[in-house]
Amino acid sequence: MKKKTIAIDMDGVLADIEHQLIQHYNKANGTNLSKESIQGLEEEEAFVDRAVVRSVLNADNFFRSLPVMPDAVESVRELQENFEIFIVSAATEFPVSLAEKVAWLGEHFPFIKWENIILCGSKRIINTDYMIDDHCKNLDYCMGKPIMFTAFHNINKTHHLRVNNWKEVVAVLNETL
Amino acid sequence: MKKKTIAIDMDGVLADIEHQLIQHYNKANGTNLSKESIQGLEEEEAFVDRAVVRSVLNADNFFRSLPVMPDAVESVRELQENFEIFIVSAATEFPVSLAEKVAWLGEHFPFIKWENIILCGSKRIINTDYMIDDHCKNLDYCMGKPIMFTAFHNINKTHHLRVNNWKEVVAVLNETL
Repeated sequence: MKKKTIAIDMDGVLADIEHQLIQHYNKANGTNLSKESIQGLEEEEAFVDRAVVRSVLNADNFFRSLPVMPDAVESVRELQENFEIFIVSAATEFPVSLAEKVAWLGEHFPFIKWENIILCGSKRIINTDYMIDDHCKNLDYCMGKPIMFTAFHNINKTHHLRVNNWKEVVAVLNETL
Repeated sequence: MKKKTIAIDMDGVLADIEHQLIQHYNKANGTNLSKESIQGLEEEEAFVDRAVVRSVLNADNFFRSLPVMPDAVESVRELQENFEIFIVSAATEFPVSLAEKVAWLGEHFPFIKWENIILCGSKRIINTDYMIDDHCKNLDYCMGKPIMFTAFHNINKTHHLRVNNWKEVVAVLNETL
């Protein structure tokens, strides 16, 4: 039987961008943001100086050096047994991130083939059975079933199925088998 | 009314890869291939030494310096009035090509926004109303209506609607309006 497909986001889902963005933003901007202080804010409210955000995200090695989310590697490997996994990451806004994201996946998720990596802008034309993402701008328009991965900017959103960590992702998806 | 969507391939459709690949391959391999001598052959039959092909495609500046297909710029701009255009290019196999393809589009197609650029591997989860591509491996499994752009390797394939140039693309698509 053909496996069901899952589109998995990178930043905020496979890669822990939050911690590193706070650190780099504070350093560049002289602010004192913390994981706690930005809970429930929209990204633009949390990181007000958008020019600094752009400069941080455009810097060499930012995306290449992101830490992996807890349990992500083993969970994706486990899901791959029963689902076809596609990594679908918004990246074309920051061209320096493109090769870095492929290299990052190669290091941490070497069992994901290049055929299954998609670097995009909008995710509106991605058609998979499930989409795991932290951004409602992607989940609201996705063609399959949306699964919202908890992040500071979505904790007050309630209109998608929520998962708080990778163990919950695996539990939710295995239940569909 | 929501515009219909078109996924447009880059190599062999927007970008004239054939001429440049023949030149670089011949130079690296001491062969004497020509546009005429490879007509009707599969890519692997035309460019037999796959290691040389990989090295050519992995070289800096190969994709960045490809010529634009005749009439492509004006045609895509015209189609954009009535369709939503996505550029969908297989690129993750050659990471060096990723940023180069975005830069190439920025130079030649500055009216395409980053949101509408997709660099992928397999195109199987791309869902647009139309897909313009030269490769049957993409067209055979696409979710929308396939449109085959003529290339040396597909001239004997007859199972998709064929277009020979950009003027024909525009004519075929405008007829659907």
